[in-house]
Amino acid sequence: MSISSFHPPQRTLMGPGPSDVNPRILEAMSRPTIGHLDPQFVQMMDEMKELLQYAFQTKNRMTMPVSAPGSAGMECCFVNLVEPGDKVVVCQNGVFGGRMKENVTRSGGIVIAVDDEWGQAVDPDKLEEALKSNPDTKIVAFVHAETSTGALSDAKKLAEIAHRYNCLTIVDTVTSLGGLPVLVDEWDIDAIYSGSQKCLSCTPGLSPVSFNAAAVEKISSRKTPVQSWFLDLNLVMGYWGEGTKRAYHHTAPINALYALHEALVILQEEGLQAAWDRHWKNHLALRAGIEAMGLKFIAKEGERLPQLNTVTIPDGIDDAVVRSKLLQDYNLEIGAGLGALAGKAWRIGLMGHASNKTNVLLCLGALDAILTELGANITGGVAVKAANAVYA
Amino acid sequence: MSISSFHPPQRTLMGPGPSDVNPRILEAMSRPTIGHLDPQFVQMMDEMKELLQYAFQTKNRMTMPVSAPGSAGMECCFVNLVEPGDKVVVCQNGVFGGRMKENVTRSGGIVIAVDDEWGQAVDPDKLEEALKSNPDTKIVAFVHAETSTGALSDAKKLAEIAHRYNCLTIVDTVTSLGGLPVLVDEWDIDAIYSGSQKCLSCTPGLSPVSFNAAAVEKISSRKTPVQSWFLDLNLVMGYWGEGTKRAYHHTAPINALYALHEALVILQEEGLQAAWDRHWKNHLALRAGIEAMGLKFIAKEGERLPQLNTVTIPDGIDDAVVRSKLLQDYNLEIGAGLGALAGKAWRIGLMGHASNKTNVLLCLGALDAILTELGANITGGVAVKAANAVYA
Repeated sequence: MSISSFHPPQRTLMGPGPSDVNPRILEAMSRPTIGHLDPQFVQMMDEMKELLQYAFQTKNRMTMPVSAPGSAGMECCFVNLVEPGDKVVVCQNGVFGGRMKENVTRSGGIVIAVDDEWGQAVDPDKLEEALKSNPDTKIVAFVHAETSTGALSDAKKLAEIAHRYNCLTIVDTVTSLGGLPVLVDEWDIDAIYSGSQKCLSCTPGLSPVSFNAAAVEKISSRKTPVQSWFLDLNLVMGYWGEGTKRAYHHTAPINALYALHEALVILQEEGLQAAWDRHWKNHLALRAGIEAMGLKFIAKEGERLPQLNTVTIPDGIDDAVVRSKLLQDYNLEIGAGLGALAGKAWRIGLMGHASNKTNVLLCLGALDAILTELGANITGGVAVKAANAVYA
Repeated sequence: MSISSFHPPQRTLMGPGPSDVNPRILEAMSRPTIGHLDPQFVQMMDEMKELLQYAFQTKNRMTMPVSAPGSAGMECCFVNLVEPGDKVVVCQNGVFGGRMKENVTRSGGIVIAVDDEWGQAVDPDKLEEALKSNPDTKIVAFVHAETSTGALSDAKKLAEIAHRYNCLTIVDTVTSLGGLPVLVDEWDIDAIYSGSQKCLSCTPGLSPVSFNAAAVEKISSRKTPVQSWFLDLNLVMGYWGEGTKRAYHHTAPINALYALHEALVILQEEGLQAAWDRHWKNHLALRAGIEAMGLKFIAKEGERLPQLNTVTIPDGIDDAVVRSKLLQDYNLEIGAGLGALAGKAWRIGLMGHASNKTNVLLCLGALDAILTELGANITGGVAVKAANAVYA
């Protein structure tokens, strides 16, 4: 055996995440490792909490990154908040609502399913009906921005309904945070999780979370221990808590946290509103090109995520062939359809650093050329021009 | 709010981990992020498995890094192997055996405790007695190298006893892997976990694990689902499994995996035997200096870890004052005592890249100067000379 160093190619990442990482973040990640209890590291942790409070628009004190990817952030919310026997309404309109259901049952909870078509937003009326029929429900969980379909749900309205029925809310904002408004305090969301590798444009591996006072109260008054030692917030907060004294719980992923810190500094420099505006502008340009070609979006207008554009694959065109050509000929990654949309749709991400004019034009130009070459039934040669008109 | 980029100081890391990271690893970590299903990334994953098989000295096909720190690797072993009602013997001789007990009960298992003094190796006779008294035990769990005390246990003998009583073994090698022999196949260990940030000298955040056929059989024939979705190996292996087709489970921490890959390439270049020899040589030199000063080890000779030297604090000397001076005046981090040893011992790591002559002499010289300045009852001015004699 003799294996040598790995040198990855330089790709343009326009899938569902990871997205293009700002070189500043990669540079920050390679700074010298220090100890997880070093006083300077503890200061960095305090800044991190403040930066995340800004990103989530919250004053929640229990705001920090889970030391693992978004799926672990999801699990962190469920294992801490769901107690055995708790009824949990899960609204599903894509892959990630299904994963939430798995988390509820594995935490000993009982799922009340509110299902919507994949590609549609969660229907608030269906949620309200489910809560009327199940007045002993403890928690309502839903995905704000469904990464599998590109559909945006009305988190504010869903949270408002949940609270009217005395439920806590768990909200997935893995794909939304940094790309469109996520207003934790204004919307009164109780528990929320996200991912580092989407609109924050950081490397994958961390999951920002935030819990309000009601969620903390439920966690600290549990009758049964949290089933996960690693994700038990009662323990994690001994490390991520307040003051200069931090108790060892697990060894934090030091350099990954440098990267997230830098990603959040960049977000703070740009400003949330400017970041949201940028995501929207580039979406409009991509959309103009996509529609000029004659391709269609899965999600309805008004329910579309600007940062994740789920687009139908033309008849007779092989999904994998196109993605493979994009990767080989253009070093461009777009995402495959997931679950019910596998083989039927592409997911074109315009997330964080990747949401820019160059990427929009590259993607449209490359798709146009490949689909034309493959004889797809599209209007060729007009996509880039249509997008440019939006920027003009 | 205006928070700027974080620039950590350059420390020498001689605590219980993270250890000094080879600059090659930091450089690898900052390479361009690519997708977690990119064909080139999948090739890197295959190399990673091969490199980990070498580090663990195993042919186990289920060998890969968990996408989270060592505590999650521990939890991965327990939640996958322990089924509700299973009796699990946990041998405890320090902090991490206690954490294993937590993992057993949170997984629904029943702990049979085999307790030894902190600082001593696990007593094989006690294990055998416990198994005689509890013939329906399913699993034996122990820590090979106790990070909290610096004691080494005889993993081969403990595994042999466990198997005589038809038990599977779960072994913690967080601190041992790469620093002294860990022979998974020869010792017939069923499930093993480690950490990236100790003798592999990588950044923290990943936990290499390996499972043999007997462990895989138990996992795939479970009657109850694994309580953790994120750590469920039945699902994880859809991504880390074989062939070119990999199913999305979670988004892998791409850049952290670049770093671990590079750390393992470095280990392969040096060779396991040479790495073990180097750890031993530097330990002997440190030990000569420590003993010349008149300080004592917590662990008995013959049971001492070369990579983690747990040393008693002289009477009348304040632990925190010394560590704070080391950090401020020498940019040198050593570890505090943990659990029962808090305030009573220091933990001096010589792990991976940090196991070198420069670090040994720096640490001895700095300790000598500070302890002399504080008026400690030690023999001053001889430690560095004693260590140098070992290198001569």
